[in-house]
Amino acid sequence: MRDVSVAGAAMTPFGKFLDTPLRSLAAQAVGGALEDAGLGPADVELAFFANATAGLITGQEMIRGETALRETGLLGIPIFNVENACASASSAFHLAWMAVASGQCETALVVGAEKMAHADRKRPFAALGAGIDLERRGDLETFVYGEDGTPGTGSLFMDIYALLAERYMERSGATERDFAQVAVKNHHHGALNPHAQYRDEVTVEEVLASRTISGPLKLLMCSPIGDGAAALVLRAGDGAVKVRGTALATGRDDDGPLAVERAAEKAYAQAGVGPGDVDVAEVHDAAAPAELQIYEELGLCGEGEGPAFLASGATMLGGRIPVNPSGGLLSKGHPVGATGCAQLVELTDQLRGRAGARQVQGARIALAENAGGFLGPDQAVACVTILEATG
Amino acid sequence: MRDVSVAGAAMTPFGKFLDTPLRSLAAQAVGGALEDAGLGPADVELAFFANATAGLITGQEMIRGETALRETGLLGIPIFNVENACASASSAFHLAWMAVASGQCETALVVGAEKMAHADRKRPFAALGAGIDLERRGDLETFVYGEDGTPGTGSLFMDIYALLAERYMERSGATERDFAQVAVKNHHHGALNPHAQYRDEVTVEEVLASRTISGPLKLLMCSPIGDGAAALVLRAGDGAVKVRGTALATGRDDDGPLAVERAAEKAYAQAGVGPGDVDVAEVHDAAAPAELQIYEELGLCGEGEGPAFLASGATMLGGRIPVNPSGGLLSKGHPVGATGCAQLVELTDQLRGRAGARQVQGARIALAENAGGFLGPDQAVACVTILEATG
Repeated sequence: MRDVSVAGAAMTPFGKFLDTPLRSLAAQAVGGALEDAGLGPADVELAFFANATAGLITGQEMIRGETALRETGLLGIPIFNVENACASASSAFHLAWMAVASGQCETALVVGAEKMAHADRKRPFAALGAGIDLERRGDLETFVYGEDGTPGTGSLFMDIYALLAERYMERSGATERDFAQVAVKNHHHGALNPHAQYRDEVTVEEVLASRTISGPLKLLMCSPIGDGAAALVLRAGDGAVKVRGTALATGRDDDGPLAVERAAEKAYAQAGVGPGDVDVAEVHDAAAPAELQIYEELGLCGEGEGPAFLASGATMLGGRIPVNPSGGLLSKGHPVGATGCAQLVELTDQLRGRAGARQVQGARIALAENAGGFLGPDQAVACVTILEATG
Repeated sequence: MRDVSVAGAAMTPFGKFLDTPLRSLAAQAVGGALEDAGLGPADVELAFFANATAGLITGQEMIRGETALRETGLLGIPIFNVENACASASSAFHLAWMAVASGQCETALVVGAEKMAHADRKRPFAALGAGIDLERRGDLETFVYGEDGTPGTGSLFMDIYALLAERYMERSGATERDFAQVAVKNHHHGALNPHAQYRDEVTVEEVLASRTISGPLKLLMCSPIGDGAAALVLRAGDGAVKVRGTALATGRDDDGPLAVERAAEKAYAQAGVGPGDVDVAEVHDAAAPAELQIYEELGLCGEGEGPAFLASGATMLGGRIPVNPSGGLLSKGHPVGATGCAQLVELTDQLRGRAGARQVQGARIALAENAGGFLGPDQAVACVTILEATG
């Protein structure tokens, strides 16, 4: 496999854009990424289009990429529609990397685009409900609510995050205040990001006083519904930002390592680096408590040390390894099929010194962790990507 | 890129299996393909799962592969969900080939699985309706029905096939009787295939007397709604069946070559063969008239010669190049996300001399053509795959 570089990267602002079709969001991100790369549509040989919910949101169940990219000048080339729930875009990035690394093509494009905001506000939540194994919904409900099956909030997804947060509190001593502190940090970062859906600072008290969603989860600890797109152009050879590792794993029923842990182990091995080498990370804080667990799963700190690691300031801008300098899913937003690419756009900008007020000084190695769906206590799929500044 | 072989191939029977979940169909095909390859689930390093309609049929919009493969022992490895309408499975096959050819892995699995039959009989037709660009449905209706916009049969998809058939009749002189003859041929083949959804011979008179669907299209000229799954195991190195070419193209708005023509040109070039070298083909006869057009688009005969080529018997079993010996989509059935893999399972069996009563004697080079969706008069995506017997 040969070297692959990120030659261009761009994203739309994230937010709720009721009147903007998916195709417009996709075209804006693609146009930006091509311009950034100094290339035109005719230079792209393969495209991978990531989206998770269009079938249930707009009804465009099939040929999502062909329709969304119709006005970009890309039609004609092979387009692959890739889905892996909230990890759709990192999965698509992995395939685009493979296409270039293998010599199948010189230039590939990956786009993640999602439109979730809808006049019918129940629709995005219903769509997100398809991130579990529907045939085994009963098993999952028993796992989350116990044999008595007390119904939860209506969002089984958020109830799973809440249960995992409670278990994490038991084994690490984490408190709701720690979770709130994650939201405070990520909103602080997001306030510096012109693409973020929410650009307001929040306090621990505000987070704790926000509406309870499920168990220890408050509204401001949960990523919002939103729209957006992000795109990257991958090219063979050297460039300012090199892909050092990209690995996926899917969830299992056994007691072995989680999908995130297995994906991280593979990505570190491929990159030839360890957690101590990472200068900046974007991780999948779909709910605030998850970020503390991910610190541990990625080996950024030891088991049970998540709260202390956060409290040390290590993961704040200015700390040893800023996590979610973009604002993360909590503040930047989480149009699910776009998120994996948006994380990599942020890291590419960080490695090129283009992150403005949220720049991590001297960042050389960057890591993205993106996960999706639940098969039980384990995420259905996790993807870890490692980039390096070569300039 | 290194050599890639088909090490195992299997499919379920196609049919309407209202009480069989998608996971059972997928597991049956995967188990069969692994057994055929003499491998177990632990030998598979990557899996690609093709499906086109589950989001709208069962609601399982996300993590389709992770849920469908849950009982196969495959969970843990990377699983990519791939969609490209009726060409989903050949698109997934292409990516599995790329993964092995590139050295990314030694063994990859590709599964196409679809469950369309539903107690609510309107649901599969509604799902198929998502194979066009919904935002431009109006443009497409104007194209098909003219400015006055006389509504068609309710299935815009079949009305497009009908319009293309009418245009083809004008330029080639093809008649409804020619189209009926395609159905007669494919039902004759399908009657020899234990996996076919319909195993009854039909006569030209029966086809012409069947209910009118749209324009010149009669019921027996249209592929049926159905369920099924097909899987292939790809391995690095030499084997009895080698992948010689695999190419995709997407549809365009211009007057240039169609997606099928562009994909075929690339696949022939990659394989280093031409239409005259092909011994057996499976093509996308979603509607009977399409098969005649595909003969021409693949260069199996000259422009406008489709009807004469069919009438010559060349594409019947026993002819120079039998087309759709499996029965094709018309008789074997068309669970859309499974079709691309099912075509390749049939061709693998043909090249290994395992096709029983429908064996094409001495077949060495086999071609599959799989297409999906409509962006206008052109298919949204087309994929052509060329296999070779090396034994």
